[in-house]
Amino acid sequence: MLYRIYCLYLPHILCNTMQTTTHSNETLYPHVSVDCVLLGIHDDELCVLLTERRNAGTGQTEYKLPGSLIYETEDLDEAAYRILNETTGLKRVLLRQFRSFGSPHRTANKEDVLWLENASKMKIGRIVTIAYLALCKVRRIKIGEKYGPVQWTPIASLPRLPFDHKEIIAEAVKEIRLWTDVEPAIVFDYLPPLFTASQLRRTYEIIYDKRIDVRNFHKRINAMEYVVQTEESQQGMPHRSARYYCFDKKKYNNIRAKLNTI
Amino acid sequence: MLYRIYCLYLPHILCNTMQTTTHSNETLYPHVSVDCVLLGIHDDELCVLLTERRNAGTGQTEYKLPGSLIYETEDLDEAAYRILNETTGLKRVLLRQFRSFGSPHRTANKEDVLWLENASKMKIGRIVTIAYLALCKVRRIKIGEKYGPVQWTPIASLPRLPFDHKEIIAEAVKEIRLWTDVEPAIVFDYLPPLFTASQLRRTYEIIYDKRIDVRNFHKRINAMEYVVQTEESQQGMPHRSARYYCFDKKKYNNIRAKLNTI
Repeated sequence: MLYRIYCLYLPHILCNTMQTTTHSNETLYPHVSVDCVLLGIHDDELCVLLTERRNAGTGQTEYKLPGSLIYETEDLDEAAYRILNETTGLKRVLLRQFRSFGSPHRTANKEDVLWLENASKMKIGRIVTIAYLALCKVRRIKIGEKYGPVQWTPIASLPRLPFDHKEIIAEAVKEIRLWTDVEPAIVFDYLPPLFTASQLRRTYEIIYDKRIDVRNFHKRINAMEYVVQTEESQQGMPHRSARYYCFDKKKYNNIRAKLNTI
Repeated sequence: MLYRIYCLYLPHILCNTMQTTTHSNETLYPHVSVDCVLLGIHDDELCVLLTERRNAGTGQTEYKLPGSLIYETEDLDEAAYRILNETTGLKRVLLRQFRSFGSPHRTANKEDVLWLENASKMKIGRIVTIAYLALCKVRRIKIGEKYGPVQWTPIASLPRLPFDHKEIIAEAVKEIRLWTDVEPAIVFDYLPPLFTASQLRRTYEIIYDKRIDVRNFHKRINAMEYVVQTEESQQGMPHRSARYYCFDKKKYNNIRAKLNTI
């Protein structure tokens, strides 16, 4: 299993095959929640949408992923779209369930449990959460209007978060990179129809969180036959104006077709 | 979002965005289970591994996906590997969590609930299940030894199954096809190192559940530059012996690289 689609899963899974399973075989009544990870590029950084909460004890503002325990009569997807809508007012974002998190250690921090018990008016034991993910265009979410309060927060400088929300965000970022590996067209959904080489380079740098050498980036673009240079250039730039490129979906799908002709 | 990796998700997700969410906002204590979908090609058919259970009422043998409520101290992945090991004796299968199922209608059938209440000695309300998936080489699982009893059952002729197990299996088959779309190398992991054109064609036919025209299949193979004809042929065949092909991973990765040069 050497192929990229597995790469992110394999180490994670193999370590589990090594674990001994000497457990209490009592079962339990956990709670089930849904958490939504909305990722977007904001101020030239990969950001995640966090909601604010007031800490009853300290009175300080804290942050968390948008999420909720599931309601008695709703399906998981319905819960995810309810949370999305209550948080952002959006309805038509492509939210994808990407992984469930159910470690017994999720509720190790008594402060987190206390907050949730106050918020839900229920005794909280273990919580299994179903995480959903979307790559959003930031401008679609209007901060500080009737929804929220929410905040785009750079992945690189997350505040203290409850439960395993930092782990969920880290896994969501890996998932977005996996989508980009197997279907790089995602990147071009995210760019405007006409984009410069540096816009494309910067988008890849932000998604993969790595520097890409400017000098040989044009070589890389040329190797992607579906990234086509247009006749148009940026207007009103102080220095030499950069040429615009566009995404040729037909050429892209032709390369895809070479991978699978069935 | 026109690209293949989304195709299977989009209809499912859009329909959810249409739903009105007028729900009881009471929360609840559901149970959480893990179910394992092991798919494999057996007797020239796509099959799923089912475990047997005795119906206390009728005394008849019934079938279900290998699964269990999670134990108090185990993580979801640990539960999945416990179930895999208890069912098949295997430890090192690449099990991937692929989706959670949590519809309130999962427990609509009283007979299923009664069986689970008897088996678990607990009052069962709603159950959210985390489904895991693996594509297995059938010969690795020794039916009827100390593990089981289990049975490879053709997807095309499933018996009555409890809860939403048929839906889970249908989604697992879609997921395997999605993996094959984005990473067709999976198919070659499944074949022997040397394979004939008809073995390859038949494997694709079984995974995609569609007939592939024999006459132009060689054209399709030629279009997959990473499927390379060898000098060797099948031995001891009554008629004209077929030429063997092999999978050229280097060429495959070169085509992959054209999709993403970053």
